Amino acid sequence: MGLRTGQQYVEGIKNRKHAKIYVMGKKVTDVTTNLFLKPSVESFKATFDAAFQEDTRDLARAYSPYIGEEVNRFVHIHQSPADLVAKVKLLRKLSHKTGTCFQRCVGWDALNTLYIVTHKIAAREGRAEYKERFMKYLEYVQRNDLALAGAMTDVKGVRTLRPSEQPNPDAYVRVVEQRDDGIVVRGAKANITGIAVVDEVIVLPTRAMTESDASYAVAFAVPLDTPGVTVVVGRQINDARRLEGGDLDGVPYMAHHEGLVIFEDVFVPWDRVFLYKDWRWTGPLVEIFASYHRQGYGGCKSGLGDVIIGATQGLARAIGIADKPAVAEKLAEMVFLNESMYSAGLAASWEGVKLLDDGGWWVNPMYANVTKHMVARFPYEVAKIAHDIAGGIVGTAPSEFDFKNEEIRHLIEKYLQGVPDIPTEERLRLVRLLENVSVSVGYLVESVHGAGSPAAQKIMFTRLYDFQKAEEIAKSLARVKVTVKWPKEPEPRRPSEAQKT
Amino acid sequence: MGLRTGQQYVEGIKNRKHAKIYVMGKKVTDVTTNLFLKPSVESFKATFDAAFQEDTRDLARAYSPYIGEEVNRFVHIHQSPADLVAKVKLLRKLSHKTGTCFQRCVGWDALNTLYIVTHKIAAREGRAEYKERFMKYLEYVQRNDLALAGAMTDVKGVRTLRPSEQPNPDAYVRVVEQRDDGIVVRGAKANITGIAVVDEVIVLPTRAMTESDASYAVAFAVPLDTPGVTVVVGRQINDARRLEGGDLDGVPYMAHHEGLVIFEDVFVPWDRVFLYKDWRWTGPLVEIFASYHRQGYGGCKSGLGDVIIGATQGLARAIGIADKPAVAEKLAEMVFLNESMYSAGLAASWEGVKLLDDGGWWVNPMYANVTKHMVARFPYEVAKIAHDIAGGIVGTAPSEFDFKNEEIRHLIEKYLQGVPDIPTEERLRLVRLLENVSVSVGYLVESVHGAGSPAAQKIMFTRLYDFQKAEEIAKSLARVKVTVKWPKEPEPRRPSEAQKT
Amino acid sequence: MGLRTGQQYVEGIKNRKHAKIYVMGKKVTDVTTNLFLKPSVESFKATFDAAFQEDTRDLARAYSPYIGEEVNRFVHIHQSPADLVAKVKLLRKLSHKTGTCFQRCVGWDALNTLYIVTHKIAAREGRAEYKERFMKYLEYVQRNDLALAGAMTDVKGVRTLRPSEQPNPDAYVRVVEQRDDGIVVRGAKANITGIAVVDEVIVLPTRAMTESDASYAVAFAVPLDTPGVTVVVGRQINDARRLEGGDLDGVPYMAHHEGLVIFEDVFVPWDRVFLYKDWRWTGPLVEIFASYHRQGYGGCKSGLGDVIIGATQGLARAIGIADKPAVAEKLAEMVFLNESMYSAGLAASWEGVKLLDDGGWWVNPMYANVTKHMVARFPYEVAKIAHDIAGGIVGTAPSEFDFKNEEIRHLIEKYLQGVPDIPTEERLRLVRLLENVSVSVGYLVESVHGAGSPAAQKIMFTRLYDFQKAEEIAKSLARVKVTVKWPKEPEPRRPSEAQKT
Amino acid sequence: MGLRTGQQYVEGIKNRKHAKIYVMGKKVTDVTTNLFLKPSVESFKATFDAAFQEDTRDLARAYSPYIGEEVNRFVHIHQSPADLVAKVKLLRKLSHKTGTCFQRCVGWDALNTLYIVTHKIAAREGRAEYKERFMKYLEYVQRNDLALAGAMTDVKGVRTLRPSEQPNPDAYVRVVEQRDDGIVVRGAKANITGIAVVDEVIVLPTRAMTESDASYAVAFAVPLDTPGVTVVVGRQINDARRLEGGDLDGVPYMAHHEGLVIFEDVFVPWDRVFLYKDWRWTGPLVEIFASYHRQGYGGCKSGLGDVIIGATQGLARAIGIADKPAVAEKLAEMVFLNESMYSAGLAASWEGVKLLDDGGWWVNPMYANVTKHMVARFPYEVAKIAHDIAGGIVGTAPSEFDFKNEEIRHLIEKYLQGVPDIPTEERLRLVRLLENVSVSVGYLVESVHGAGSPAAQKIMFTRLYDFQKAEEIAKSLARVKVTVKWPKEPEPRRPSEAQKT
Repeated sequence: MGLRTGQQYVEGIKNRKHAKIYVMGKKVTDVTTNLFLKPSVESFKATFDAAFQEDTRDLARAYSPYIGEEVNRFVHIHQSPADLVAKVKLLRKLSHKTGTCFQRCVGWDALNTLYIVTHKIAAREGRAEYKERFMKYLEYVQRNDLALAGAMTDVKGVRTLRPSEQPNPDAYVRVVEQRDDGIVVRGAKANITGIAVVDEVIVLPTRAMTESDASYAVAFAVPLDTPGVTVVVGRQINDARRLEGGDLDGVPYMAHHEGLVIFEDVFVPWDRVFLYKDWRWTGPLVEIFASYHRQGYGGCKSGLGDVIIGATQGLARAIGIADKPAVAEKLAEMVFLNESMYSAGLAASWEGVKLLDDGGWWVNPMYANVTKHMVARFPYEVAKIAHDIAGGIVGTAPSEFDFKNEEIRHLIEKYLQGVPDIPTEERLRLVRLLENVSVSVGYLVESVHGAGSPAAQKIMFTRLYDFQKAEEIAKSLARVKVTVKWPKEPEPRRPSEAQKT
Repeated sequence: MGLRTGQQYVEGIKNRKHAKIYVMGKKVTDVTTNLFLKPSVESFKATFDAAFQEDTRDLARAYSPYIGEEVNRFVHIHQSPADLVAKVKLLRKLSHKTGTCFQRCVGWDALNTLYIVTHKIAAREGRAEYKERFMKYLEYVQRNDLALAGAMTDVKGVRTLRPSEQPNPDAYVRVVEQRDDGIVVRGAKANITGIAVVDEVIVLPTRAMTESDASYAVAFAVPLDTPGVTVVVGRQINDARRLEGGDLDGVPYMAHHEGLVIFEDVFVPWDRVFLYKDWRWTGPLVEIFASYHRQGYGGCKSGLGDVIIGATQGLARAIGIADKPAVAEKLAEMVFLNESMYSAGLAASWEGVKLLDDGGWWVNPMYANVTKHMVARFPYEVAKIAHDIAGGIVGTAPSEFDFKNEEIRHLIEKYLQGVPDIPTEERLRLVRLLENVSVSVGYLVESVHGAGSPAAQKIMFTRLYDFQKAEEIAKSLARVKVTVKWPKEPEPRRPSEAQKT
Repeated sequence: MGLRTGQQYVEGIKNRKHAKIYVMGKKVTDVTTNLFLKPSVESFKATFDAAFQEDTRDLARAYSPYIGEEVNRFVHIHQSPADLVAKVKLLRKLSHKTGTCFQRCVGWDALNTLYIVTHKIAAREGRAEYKERFMKYLEYVQRNDLALAGAMTDVKGVRTLRPSEQPNPDAYVRVVEQRDDGIVVRGAKANITGIAVVDEVIVLPTRAMTESDASYAVAFAVPLDTPGVTVVVGRQINDARRLEGGDLDGVPYMAHHEGLVIFEDVFVPWDRVFLYKDWRWTGPLVEIFASYHRQGYGGCKSGLGDVIIGATQGLARAIGIADKPAVAEKLAEMVFLNESMYSAGLAASWEGVKLLDDGGWWVNPMYANVTKHMVARFPYEVAKIAHDIAGGIVGTAPSEFDFKNEEIRHLIEKYLQGVPDIPTEERLRLVRLLENVSVSVGYLVESVHGAGSPAAQKIMFTRLYDFQKAEEIAKSLARVKVTVKWPKEPEPRRPSEAQKT
Repeated sequence: MGLRTGQQYVEGIKNRKHAKIYVMGKKVTDVTTNLFLKPSVESFKATFDAAFQEDTRDLARAYSPYIGEEVNRFVHIHQSPADLVAKVKLLRKLSHKTGTCFQRCVGWDALNTLYIVTHKIAAREGRAEYKERFMKYLEYVQRNDLALAGAMTDVKGVRTLRPSEQPNPDAYVRVVEQRDDGIVVRGAKANITGIAVVDEVIVLPTRAMTESDASYAVAFAVPLDTPGVTVVVGRQINDARRLEGGDLDGVPYMAHHEGLVIFEDVFVPWDRVFLYKDWRWTGPLVEIFASYHRQGYGGCKSGLGDVIIGATQGLARAIGIADKPAVAEKLAEMVFLNESMYSAGLAASWEGVKLLDDGGWWVNPMYANVTKHMVARFPYEVAKIAHDIAGGIVGTAPSEFDFKNEEIRHLIEKYLQGVPDIPTEERLRLVRLLENVSVSVGYLVESVHGAGSPAAQKIMFTRLYDFQKAEEIAKSLARVKVTVKWPKEPEPRRPSEAQKT
């Protein structure tokens, strides 16, 4: 098969009898028709449709050497810097089609991460079973163009304690039983993007482990309707509008969701286990994944930025101020912030690192972290400027139901109109788009926390930057004899380790 | 009477048969029981209750020389800098009680503005009718402790055109007929805070006018149920949660609203007309009002900041990170931003300006503008830091209906718990509080636009700062002979004009 | 005497035979004629002259109840919030006269600090000797209108160790011998403002001490020419210009300096010892001093900001862009940043705290810290905007010696002229003023570190803000039962302690 | 010849008898020994030496298809994105060797600009004379490895007037006479980097011209000692230290300079004239040049950032705080800002645009502008953080002459030492390095203004960003029919024009 249409994806998740998915306190039987989840399905679906649409077809497809045919790029293993660049460019374009997160990146990044880690283990330790299992799974995924979630963030309990130190031993997903035919896992993963609308979920460890945490060092994949898996979908600030039955206040018409996925003693057969007890590899795994995901934000978030800039300009035009110098200056500031994120994402891609002899291109971790750190800061600023230009109406516009009420529609039409030739409805629609996108979870909270909070990037800057060299450069310029004994590092720097074959 | 309780206020607005108020497309008959508006009523009510609560009683009352008894401070005319300081301190405390805008400041600032303007006109032009009418109205307001909205922002049509140049002549509120017994007004005011839950609305012009705009130079007051008055309540990003019937996701339990108020040929008797055709006074009026309102934000927004800081710290404690240095540093940054806004508000108060011989203290306009400009910038930053500390859960927590569903409650209890002795419900409640306050219209959009957008403050900085003196100081230090001919100002600087008796 | 003229001050420091002062590697015999130090003398002198100049006379004088006559405000003990406000206003005006730091605040703040601390010790511990000595010294200072330096910052050695733990036991100033008639001190203080041009220096401990640091808990005063005292004046980025003999490149004509003052077993008689071994009082002392000094920056740094704004506007006018909207917007931003610092300084003054029954008004520590934290951030931003508006010429203008060289003066005149009626020399002079002020130590580095680096203010925000109350407010709004056991504080919060009599 | 050593470069500029160069009011006969200019010579020299040093040899050389041999990259025409990337990487490394601007980029960017413009004119208008002259000149430059300045910024007189409208007709460089054998030019260029130490100067127009400005539309090259050329070297804030004869306070030992170059009726033969009267091409020329130069800043300024980070870390280590979390966090922030500039520079390179069939790769103008705009903002922030970490000593350290004075050296040694095993001299040297680099013209003022001030980038964001597409995207998501008539552009967008062959 190789490439599915969006419709085929929708049909594939339509009839999952055994999946346990809760939304707003109720169990959902069909996610594709549920009012709360339908916008998420639509957004995920866009990643499939992109492979068949003229403006994205080339970016959204790639040739897989593993199955010898074209696959959807969202299940592709990066073969070159050009592939990494294509990722960022595709993500920006997809944001234009969805106006929200399309939820398929985490699974994609998980595939690429496991590709590298399982190959590394085979190459460096001579143990090829993970690699063999994973490659079989990869082929399955590519041939069936599966919709995958990636589940990394554990619920974590007390943040200052390691997994094995937690009062609740299930605060991190762990193996509670090892059987001949597989393992049994218990625990929960939080903030899992798109979890209710995928075919399968790939589970990865969320942090570097020590030996005592070995039973927590586990990576695997299961279908969403595997017995013991429960999903509780999370709320977002504006989600209730989806249930109102309108067609205006809730725009954009697509949305994303994140959820809690719980594993109550779930059995995983060996051929779906990609890491088990190898705690030394959890550090590199997390770091490889994080950089992949941080790079991607340079694409999708700048794409959302385009939507916000466009809506803002439309609103400025609607009241006749689009060409005022002060407004132009603010729009230019939005562009600067938006293109900064994107350019860092491109740099992270072009300067990608080859970690394996056979395929396996990783992003440049420094610029990937730069990208994400900008993403953790700039959207709040972009939102503020957008609100500044668009005006107070962003927080005070009447509902669509007022607008549709014939008793008062003429008053709203008359009094919320700006320049004569732009209909009031156009203004209201753009206001709602701007409101929903610019204060969305996907643009604000998730920009802060996705792929690791700002502090995580700060730590990476400290580890990736060559401070020793910088100090030597300074001392050379200052004509200071470099006598300093540099401290031995407390632990091997993982990025460099990851880069060694 | 003088001082009403909150309950008396509620009863006062309960039985308005003729008020035309629309919410979500439907006409509301009783705002005090309407699910959408009830949180607004509760918040407004807090301004009355404060006069009877121990911790605010002293701040919330003031002695009125005009009726010779204590009044609620929200209908008081400032008699000293100490009164101005009390305003800022009261507002901060009220934010603590409501967690939202309590909607009574605009009316209050409108009273003080009209007090000064009508007295100024009497003093400088010898025309005392406005003053006499206003003082009579003021006594009525104070004796009955009325809930007032202030309506200033016109819908404005094409932003680059003056009122009299608009394609829609009603884009600014105007007098369409002058009668023996009063005037007839037409037009609409937008973004009117608390409009659906007040007794009366005071209408003020929104900008400086020229002679050709004279029919737009009008200030007056009418009860909300005056024939011809229609209110359309605006939506906010999280408002639909109020209608769900829950008791958790929609916290805080109070809210505010803003709305569009439309005047369809509304008759106003002369004793309620406080400015009419005196276009020269619109500039000073707007400036006096704006500075009053900008000062106030130093109180209410820093009060909301306290709520956000408190919720953030509670959430940090819930996962065991409250005393980590990096978290402490971020909390300190939030404090810095929050106290900056407050300290500027205090400076604007203590350095208040006496504009009249008898009462009439105005705020210091420079520091009032500094206050508001900080408010237009800092809350987005505070929100970002709060989200950073609190974690992704701010955008992904399950709904209260999941939490109350016995099938899965135990899973949520187990997996969203942080440190053992803090209940999961506490964490969920604080998450919802933080979510609802930190991305609310009242904390973000309204902080940008309330009392004038950031550009309006920039203009005031340009007008209020003495650039000529600064240049002379510089030239004196540089030993440059000051030969420059300073440009004659294109128009009288209004602030200085306002300050002359 | 009471009030000295500037000239009297200069004569007073002219003939100090025994003072050991080094500048640029050479011992200086007369600081008033030394080219390097003369600009500092001029700037310090301005604090005396201010008491006799029309525009500052009222602000620069105050009535001292201790000697029963008017004194220069720089030796005044604050008797009210109005005195604190007068301090901030005076400092802003003095920056206009000097264009640099005038170096007399630290000694002034040291006087007020010792006033409070010695009175507190007398009141709370019944030991009045410090108070009696200090009051005698204060009268001496006020009667003779002395120029005082305040020396607080020790050289500190290894920053992570307490005084008594240092490998170099003299890394903090300490008492090495106790005699019948006094004590002998050893150590050095760094970054001491104006140290070479004062009559006396007051030495204060720089941090909170523990019992083992008791010999470091010492405060005293000595004349600068006391045997054993050596001053080494520090360099500044632009100081060498003072030695060139020109009259243009080195503007402003006043400057400040900071230096290292070393005490090599200096004898201090008992009547000059104001704290000795009372290590418990070092914490409150440091905190009281720091807040006084942080408040003051709201005045002097905003005064320098005025100079920069004025020079920038003059330069904008010189090339014809002063009234362009984009330039006006940037100037307004400078005003906003500048007035923010000032308004916080005013709030810290008006909201001052009465720590003693008899006099002794302290600033509000929260707003004093807000003030200083702004000062630690905004000047770099103001400088950047100034450079942006003024143009590349700030870094590329020819020297005055080129301008005075008749071979090429006509070329410079011709080609660096902007608008026809503003002479090129005026532009060059303003460029040099802007250059020298905006990248000066006094405006940049000292704004960061003076009165404690930014981290010190962050710590104070953590201590001064009532996090417990904020969390209770949040929990009340979220309807969470407040069951949390708040941690007992590890040590008494010093500010509150300081506020108790 | 092709590649010169640094020494050969120095000898080449040593014996220019006719060059008229003024420094500090005096005519310089030998720039290579002049104390003021020697550090500039050293820095420029580093660009030659780099081609022979192991760590830069590969980056600093490139193969020129025009002369068929290796050339110094600073005279190379970019043949691919890889060449553009190499430029950025080389510049970063050169900053490490010099600690300052090495002054050779403008001439290099001028070469690449003229290459494209002259080829474009030939291709689009069929006039090949500019191209032929330029290629001959290029070969000459490459064969002789010339040191070139690029002179673009005119002195500009009244900024709001076009060249032909100026009261001083020479406010922009212009042709005052056309002869059979060439042209005669008059005017001056300001802020010309490295002008006193180059072999030749390439002059380019500084702005888009109209027909009436045709005589100002001129580009040419002349040797520096051409009759009629006068150079007046500009001052920098710390330049006087070079004249003191020390070896510590003035570090880094290299420096850069900028100057005013005046053309008093200078004759230029036709074969050195690369544009004349073709005013329509001035716009594209300026834009092509500006983007080249903006891209480069991503390399050199991040290289200076490395020096500052290294010095800061060395100073933190010297006082024992380098591994404190708060310091590590601030260093990480510096890294983030620094790598942001670099990553944008890389993106501008990798995403370069091919403007010609034969060679001629241009940078991506959007990311080049993003790069420069970051450079216009971040260095002030980096400097502030550096000063914060390093401590007040940055503004208060004693001079080297104090340190070398045996009377007090032991005191300075003792009291300015931090951790025991790091010599005080090391700390002083790093302080001076940090001081001189972080407040240098090259790191601050020039970062703002070089290659165009921030406003110039804002204009480019407005022109380069596809606002129409963004608005269409938004309207599509909001389900608004796109009926808007987009305004016809007032003038052809130059970038797109430049991109068409």
